[in-house]
Amino acid sequence: MTMSSPIAVFDSGIGGLTVVQALRQQMPEETIVYLGDTARVPYGTKSASTIQRYAIQAAEKLASYKPKLLIIACNTASAYGLEILKRRWSIPVLGVIEASARLALTHSHSIAVLATRATVTSDIYPQTLKAMNTAVSVHSMAAPLLVSLAEEGWWDNSITEDICRYYLADLPASVNTVILGCTHFPVFLPILERIRPDLKWIDSGTPLAKEVRKLLSNTTRSQAPTSHPTLRLLVTDESTKLHELASRFLGESAPPIELINI
Amino acid sequence: MTMSSPIAVFDSGIGGLTVVQALRQQMPEETIVYLGDTARVPYGTKSASTIQRYAIQAAEKLASYKPKLLIIACNTASAYGLEILKRRWSIPVLGVIEASARLALTHSHSIAVLATRATVTSDIYPQTLKAMNTAVSVHSMAAPLLVSLAEEGWWDNSITEDICRYYLADLPASVNTVILGCTHFPVFLPILERIRPDLKWIDSGTPLAKEVRKLLSNTTRSQAPTSHPTLRLLVTDESTKLHELASRFLGESAPPIELINI
Repeated sequence: MTMSSPIAVFDSGIGGLTVVQALRQQMPEETIVYLGDTARVPYGTKSASTIQRYAIQAAEKLASYKPKLLIIACNTASAYGLEILKRRWSIPVLGVIEASARLALTHSHSIAVLATRATVTSDIYPQTLKAMNTAVSVHSMAAPLLVSLAEEGWWDNSITEDICRYYLADLPASVNTVILGCTHFPVFLPILERIRPDLKWIDSGTPLAKEVRKLLSNTTRSQAPTSHPTLRLLVTDESTKLHELASRFLGESAPPIELINI
Repeated sequence: MTMSSPIAVFDSGIGGLTVVQALRQQMPEETIVYLGDTARVPYGTKSASTIQRYAIQAAEKLASYKPKLLIIACNTASAYGLEILKRRWSIPVLGVIEASARLALTHSHSIAVLATRATVTSDIYPQTLKAMNTAVSVHSMAAPLLVSLAEEGWWDNSITEDICRYYLADLPASVNTVILGCTHFPVFLPILERIRPDLKWIDSGTPLAKEVRKLLSNTTRSQAPTSHPTLRLLVTDESTKLHELASRFLGESAPPIELINI
């Protein structure tokens, strides 16, 4: 592992590219290898044991790129797979739960989490937040349809707005901060902020990218900025429109898509 | 293979249980083994080669039950996997495309198809309908969000109705018959018939079940009705609420769910 070793990132699909966007904003000099398990997306409706098996397989695939750091850019895979992958890997492995939880606590002690059903079932956010501050109260909301809407490219239309209103309807009055506990959900920020401009919305990517930046010491961080920082985009299934949608999640033109088998 | 050999049925998830419901109505005496590939659902957003690989693996799994007949209860897997599986298997293999196409043609020569994106991309319905009648005109509509809504249990609410209205908005005035080209979609019939009571809606399950009934000769049909016709329900992932939702798709209380690996 050297300064120029890549950061490896994986997600169930391409929603995790919102995390890559944040990483590239914080560290444009780093090389990133991203793996989206698009042949088996979504993870958020599946069981703990299946999600763990998929996370282990994705990480094993990325090991061949000899990364200096592995990021699980999927809240559901972080909820179920982080501890397992930490035990298996000698390099640092980071999920997207802790950084967003830590940032949310700087704003409020009454926090809601909008996530997939599997992430809500895992209870990872309440556990993580309460381990950081026993006085916090946490309200969890499963919003499973938002993943399909994000992958469908329905980011800001009246039907998506109705569905967001439906999911936010039961939010307790005491809540003033909401964690977007799924890496797909930042694409709905324009709608969410329109519905509830009074709330603080926390996404996972930006706080994680800031923590990664601190973590990478001078010895393992690449020299800023090289002439050829690269981004590789691996997927397990390539359907039509994937490159266009990947570019939207990434906030820039995506590199050519490389199809691999897991 | 004997009279008491089961009928094997597979689908990407549990939507194909609408086909099983139709089979059990037509042939209550038959034993059915159903496999739902819930660990990799949905298929309808994925590519041809991935869908083919999954269909082959599902069929191989079902081979161990020594069925007398294999039914692909998924329009997307039928579109891409039927010919491959027919070549590999010595028993009859049936998809859900032909029976629904044949029934639709008895009603109209101006037909629309509501299906997943992968099924629309395959062009299987226009090809099949035109092979049966060159004078037919076919309008294809991809309705990818309906699969998530069906699996989420949102079968009849105002948001689902809005989404159905959205997908039906561009229906040409000449169309008077619509094929529900996805085995999940019959659950939306109350909404669809409310929006367009003037149209004839064709689902895949009932016409297929009638064709299967004819196909099974006296020698391979079970004697009607045995005291113990059984239904086995195998899945590759068991998430919460699966049994409840399976019972809704099946129209009766589902048997205990058996978890298997593919």
